[in-house]
Amino acid sequence: MTETWNSESTIPADQAHVEESLTANVLRSFEHCEDPRLKQVMQGLVRHLHAFIRDVRLTEKEWNTAIAFLTAVGHITDDRRQEFILLSDVLGASMQTINVNNTAYKDATEATVFGPFFVEDAPEIPIGGDIAGGAQGQPCWVEGTVTDTEGHPVPTARIEVWEADEDGFYDVQYTDHRVAGRAHLFSDAEGRYSFWGLTPTPYPIPHDGPVGKLLEATGRSPMRASHLHFMVTAPELRTLVTHIFVTGDELLKYDTVFGVKQSLVKDFIEQPAGTPAPDGRDLGAAAWAKARFDIVLAPADA
Amino acid sequence: MTETWNSESTIPADQAHVEESLTANVLRSFEHCEDPRLKQVMQGLVRHLHAFIRDVRLTEKEWNTAIAFLTAVGHITDDRRQEFILLSDVLGASMQTINVNNTAYKDATEATVFGPFFVEDAPEIPIGGDIAGGAQGQPCWVEGTVTDTEGHPVPTARIEVWEADEDGFYDVQYTDHRVAGRAHLFSDAEGRYSFWGLTPTPYPIPHDGPVGKLLEATGRSPMRASHLHFMVTAPELRTLVTHIFVTGDELLKYDTVFGVKQSLVKDFIEQPAGTPAPDGRDLGAAAWAKARFDIVLAPADA
Repeated sequence: MTETWNSESTIPADQAHVEESLTANVLRSFEHCEDPRLKQVMQGLVRHLHAFIRDVRLTEKEWNTAIAFLTAVGHITDDRRQEFILLSDVLGASMQTINVNNTAYKDATEATVFGPFFVEDAPEIPIGGDIAGGAQGQPCWVEGTVTDTEGHPVPTARIEVWEADEDGFYDVQYTDHRVAGRAHLFSDAEGRYSFWGLTPTPYPIPHDGPVGKLLEATGRSPMRASHLHFMVTAPELRTLVTHIFVTGDELLKYDTVFGVKQSLVKDFIEQPAGTPAPDGRDLGAAAWAKARFDIVLAPADA
Repeated sequence: MTETWNSESTIPADQAHVEESLTANVLRSFEHCEDPRLKQVMQGLVRHLHAFIRDVRLTEKEWNTAIAFLTAVGHITDDRRQEFILLSDVLGASMQTINVNNTAYKDATEATVFGPFFVEDAPEIPIGGDIAGGAQGQPCWVEGTVTDTEGHPVPTARIEVWEADEDGFYDVQYTDHRVAGRAHLFSDAEGRYSFWGLTPTPYPIPHDGPVGKLLEATGRSPMRASHLHFMVTAPELRTLVTHIFVTGDELLKYDTVFGVKQSLVKDFIEQPAGTPAPDGRDLGAAAWAKARFDIVLAPADA
């Protein structure tokens, strides 16, 4: 039923004409789009989608597989599971979008993927408060400053933090719908912040669905490097969505969503049991860790 | 939050390097895929998907809109509605896949889009039987032959036919789950076939969902040119999925799924009420139509 060429061989001129005419016809169908940006995006999509189909000589069976795959991605997606974001993440599409929109600006902190686990309206904690909310893991003191690229402190920056527990699960993956391992706080008048979180541990992205099957079929690991999520917003400054990663983590090179940037890898320094905590908290017989993350925000119009 | 370039302007070298490195990194992640074809398809997808994001400088807001759009497409899709196929159709991706896989071969009948309305196990009718099954519309006698590209008749070719009723609805869009406007029959020993169908009428693709919203936002019509679907299978011959269209239909130029090929446009000849039917059927006071469609199948390995 199929006659295929690989991209190195030559497609007969009459066949190429049929394929090119179709693409031109589809591009033309968007001619009356009144929103110039939407027109540009849709025509760009058509151009690249058709180039993909022509380049790999996509078979009808493969097209059917793709339709069934997307259908399965759609059906597993609900309010608490976002398989389309996972798919975008493992294809590097999320990270490429981040790159395109967060260009380097002076020493502004680099951005990385948002991921599917952010939840609006996480509880507010005071500076020095605990985000764990019952999530299990090694306590970890995180502190730093928020400044702009001129070195000025940014007071009352809103800092959202969220992370997985020591078993690699976010609260939205719990069955009981409680909120844990996430909170927001505000920097103080000098731009300083601190909180108790959990020492990040590696975990697989949810891989019991179609994206997990895709990773398995392609010989890829579902593991993410250990990390702690941040989203920092302040007036007139570029919103920063990022993580910090852990020095020495073997998964830094293989992060399945391609989120690692060297500037975001931080030392999480182990503190033996009994080491006094910065805020005098009694940690009993538990070891803990501490990490520093100084955040630099670019101007909103950078 | 965003700094964008349009595709005509220059991207700074360090920024281009960041973007190209990411794509290379994602391509490399498929290196251990043991299925060489799957590896080729996935790497092709990544290359073109990243090129799209970089080319249009996709914003994070647009990425979010795309995720929400795909989620909505997934959620409206069920056993009887396939919004991903509609999406592929209106982007010309379905038709491009058909083109790639059904290259011209001698005078073999051209293929066109499958569409989302085919159903397995439609009832069998004898030659000259009626596919309407209660679907309303003007009776239409369709006849022709099935031959191979050497001109030999193809006996007992399986011919699936399906179409919308005069209101533009397929049976799967009815609320009562009855089967109508679809059937299969087999060509006779000389490759001949005939059946009673309905004169095709134009209709919109289902446009009350996300794909309909996309068409509206981009200034496109949801209308399809009038057509009657065929799928013809026979041993050792290339399966043909196609339609026939109606000479004179104003929508031939604007078919929203880009399915029209000139060779598939046929004369549907109006027969005034009282004109004797080819099989002696009593059509009462109704006008009817007739059309001829001679089907030529390519070899399976063409």
